[in-house]
Amino acid sequence: MASIFTKIINGEIPSYKIAENDSCFAFLDINPLQKGHTLVVPKVEVDRYYDLPSETLSELTFFSKQVARAIKAAYPCDRIGVAVIGLEVPHAHLHLIPINRMADMDFWSPKLELSPEEFLEIMTNIKLKL
Amino acid sequence: MASIFTKIINGEIPSYKIAENDSCFAFLDINPLQKGHTLVVPKVEVDRYYDLPSETLSELTFFSKQVARAIKAAYPCDRIGVAVIGLEVPHAHLHLIPINRMADMDFWSPKLELSPEEFLEIMTNIKLKL
Repeated sequence: MASIFTKIINGEIPSYKIAENDSCFAFLDINPLQKGHTLVVPKVEVDRYYDLPSETLSELTFFSKQVARAIKAAYPCDRIGVAVIGLEVPHAHLHLIPINRMADMDFWSPKLELSPEEFLEIMTNIKLKL
Repeated sequence: MASIFTKIINGEIPSYKIAENDSCFAFLDINPLQKGHTLVVPKVEVDRYYDLPSETLSELTFFSKQVARAIKAAYPCDRIGVAVIGLEVPHAHLHLIPINRMADMDFWSPKLELSPEEFLEIMTNIKLKL
């Protein structure tokens, strides 16, 4: 069965899409730790990040760099934190999170509750920096 | 001034070294969340991960994949979690952490207190899987 991320990539489930190329897809996390918190996924459905084919891993790394720079430009911060955990959805994904301090990427802290209008604004702000 | 990681790479500060190539270096985190928790750093001293030159970023990704697979072989787990935070040492680094559940990479949980003998054993176990 297709993962929820494959359904998002295929447009079967809506998302606040940031960017896409032949092999990768980026969209806003709907349970964000910070404004700009984005998920980057390979289009190929592989569970574990380090099981990805080398070419895909490389493409994902460069794609993430472009997206991370756009997030940082849209939401100025000390840096973009990266996390690959992936225990909930069996489709490798990177979290890109604007951070100024350690606690900004504490996955146990309450998530932001944003309206659709706020998500659309964040999506637009990041896309303008790509 | 050289970062603490550059001093480790240069052998001025001792470390439990896992692996090294022309551009990257891996060693055990001395404040580990789990047995096998390893830091991977580029030899070039750049603060922010996504500011690394593309070639270095690519080398670091593949080197990390090799190290991650060895950690997983030595310390069986669901997967290797990855975190790039980097607010404490201004020298880009990836945390590679064996995880079975989210809480296994909670940076706010108490760190393991291991003896030098235990660190040496972990280092040896991982190197044997490289």
